Amino acid sequence: MSITVVGSVAFDTLKTPSGVREKIVGGAATFFSLSASFFTDVRVVAVVGEDFTAEHESILTKRGVDTRGIEHSKGLTFHWGGEYGDNLNEAKTKFTDLNVFENFQPKVPREYLDSKFVFLANIQPTLQLMVREQFKDAKLVGGDTMNLWINIAKPELLETLARVDVLLINDTEAKMLAGDSSLPRAAKKVMDMGPSTLVIKHGEYGATIFFKDGHHPFRAPTLPLDVVQDPTGAGDSFAGGFMGYIASQPELTKQVLKKAMFYGGVMGSFAIERFGTERLQELTKQEIDERFNLFRSLTHLD
Amino acid sequence: MSITVVGSVAFDTLKTPSGVREKIVGGAATFFSLSASFFTDVRVVAVVGEDFTAEHESILTKRGVDTRGIEHSKGLTFHWGGEYGDNLNEAKTKFTDLNVFENFQPKVPREYLDSKFVFLANIQPTLQLMVREQFKDAKLVGGDTMNLWINIAKPELLETLARVDVLLINDTEAKMLAGDSSLPRAAKKVMDMGPSTLVIKHGEYGATIFFKDGHHPFRAPTLPLDVVQDPTGAGDSFAGGFMGYIASQPELTKQVLKKAMFYGGVMGSFAIERFGTERLQELTKQEIDERFNLFRSLTHLD
Repeated sequence: MSITVVGSVAFDTLKTPSGVREKIVGGAATFFSLSASFFTDVRVVAVVGEDFTAEHESILTKRGVDTRGIEHSKGLTFHWGGEYGDNLNEAKTKFTDLNVFENFQPKVPREYLDSKFVFLANIQPTLQLMVREQFKDAKLVGGDTMNLWINIAKPELLETLARVDVLLINDTEAKMLAGDSSLPRAAKKVMDMGPSTLVIKHGEYGATIFFKDGHHPFRAPTLPLDVVQDPTGAGDSFAGGFMGYIASQPELTKQVLKKAMFYGGVMGSFAIERFGTERLQELTKQEIDERFNLFRSLTHLD
Repeated sequence: MSITVVGSVAFDTLKTPSGVREKIVGGAATFFSLSASFFTDVRVVAVVGEDFTAEHESILTKRGVDTRGIEHSKGLTFHWGGEYGDNLNEAKTKFTDLNVFENFQPKVPREYLDSKFVFLANIQPTLQLMVREQFKDAKLVGGDTMNLWINIAKPELLETLARVDVLLINDTEAKMLAGDSSLPRAAKKVMDMGPSTLVIKHGEYGATIFFKDGHHPFRAPTLPLDVVQDPTGAGDSFAGGFMGYIASQPELTKQVLKKAMFYGGVMGSFAIERFGTERLQELTKQEIDERFNLFRSLTHLD
């Protein structure tokens, strides 16, 4: 079944130990959409500027992503500049030119509203909530957030979290949101804010899914890879694989959620192998299946 | 088959968010021995002072550990004082009174020399090598080390590593030893120094085993636990479960090493539930089996 994602479609200018790229297509909704497109139909809600050409958009449309919800606005596209040192786990932001993204008012095309799966990528929580409330019949709503909103928009974020089923955040965000330095305790506190399911991403150590109903947690790995060219988009690609796989399944069981964790890790591990969306653009379903099996043998005793 | 461990038997004075303990029995060889004793016969080589009483030693002998290799020397026992803040992953050392440990010259009882399994806990690398060379028929030699020796005794450490089969270290140590900030690359470089097998411990994220022969790595989890009273000895308890399980098996296969990774994680997770060796002293085989199964369901899709 189709999934609608709202978030940023942007340009990234990147420097990593593997090289540099100027103004390549990035953004949370882009990585999410490409990643999820290997599993299900994807619809995207975003805003871009006049410098975002048909060629740029073709990165999404070539993968069958429905881009009718991408608004073309007067001005320039959101542009982020970042640099990674030898420790690829942390980006140093060089500039953040919000441009048309600064006044982003998500407009969900009427044709999208029958999506049963929705993903609220990392944007201002009030906008996330606005979008979420338009999907009356949503079966599962996923969401992301970041330190910035935890710091400057906590009340709005809490309102949004009350309406999110699965929250996907990293260790630092979970601990900050809960105000607790113990991960399992933080997980419980975050679920008390709304989400019945919480995915905490541990970077190169994989990710853990926690369930409010008392079911034991489940951990999926990432692959210890030799070459990481560019970590940008790993988390959004994880979310795309996770949500995309779920949306492709007839039922929403714990087993589906666990397998979705593996697919999330698989898609994140591909994204970082090359710059920006380069690897996701040329990926095949067979490569995904092979890496899924590799991840299984990396963690399973039999 | 029996395993001989050489390392510290010591006193710890600890402060954690859960409480304080004055001069309780600790030390790498202690945690290792107790943990391994649930799987196989354990023999320990260490030195203690006059303040180390029969009652202290009974913590080991009650679990059947052979303590004939514990030398009772004139003076005081090695005593470490440490404090953990809310972030339980890092200890702040308050004092390190080496005492009799300063001039430790390991004396391996002749009766120990038929041990086919040997573990060189974290002591000066030259001493590790001295002990290792006495076990001519060793089937598997495991070892640990720390930042201190990487910094001040690298040449000696490299000599020792050339004679170690399985090295167990944490992320920071692996990266420092290899001089490489990428974990998979660091793993390869460390194995080039000697060990055919490398276990890198990731704290609360579990541990990964790497093989020099090209077999894919394998990752075992730790349990996201609510209550961690005292992280001291987690790594040594991991090593004890890992090496102890291996020593208990008739053959040394990849499958055995993978299961050993799970038992390592299991034993480490018990150790931190209470202060010092308290939890390991009262542990049962049934609890170990139950947690093994929990760890399996925490990571296995089926």
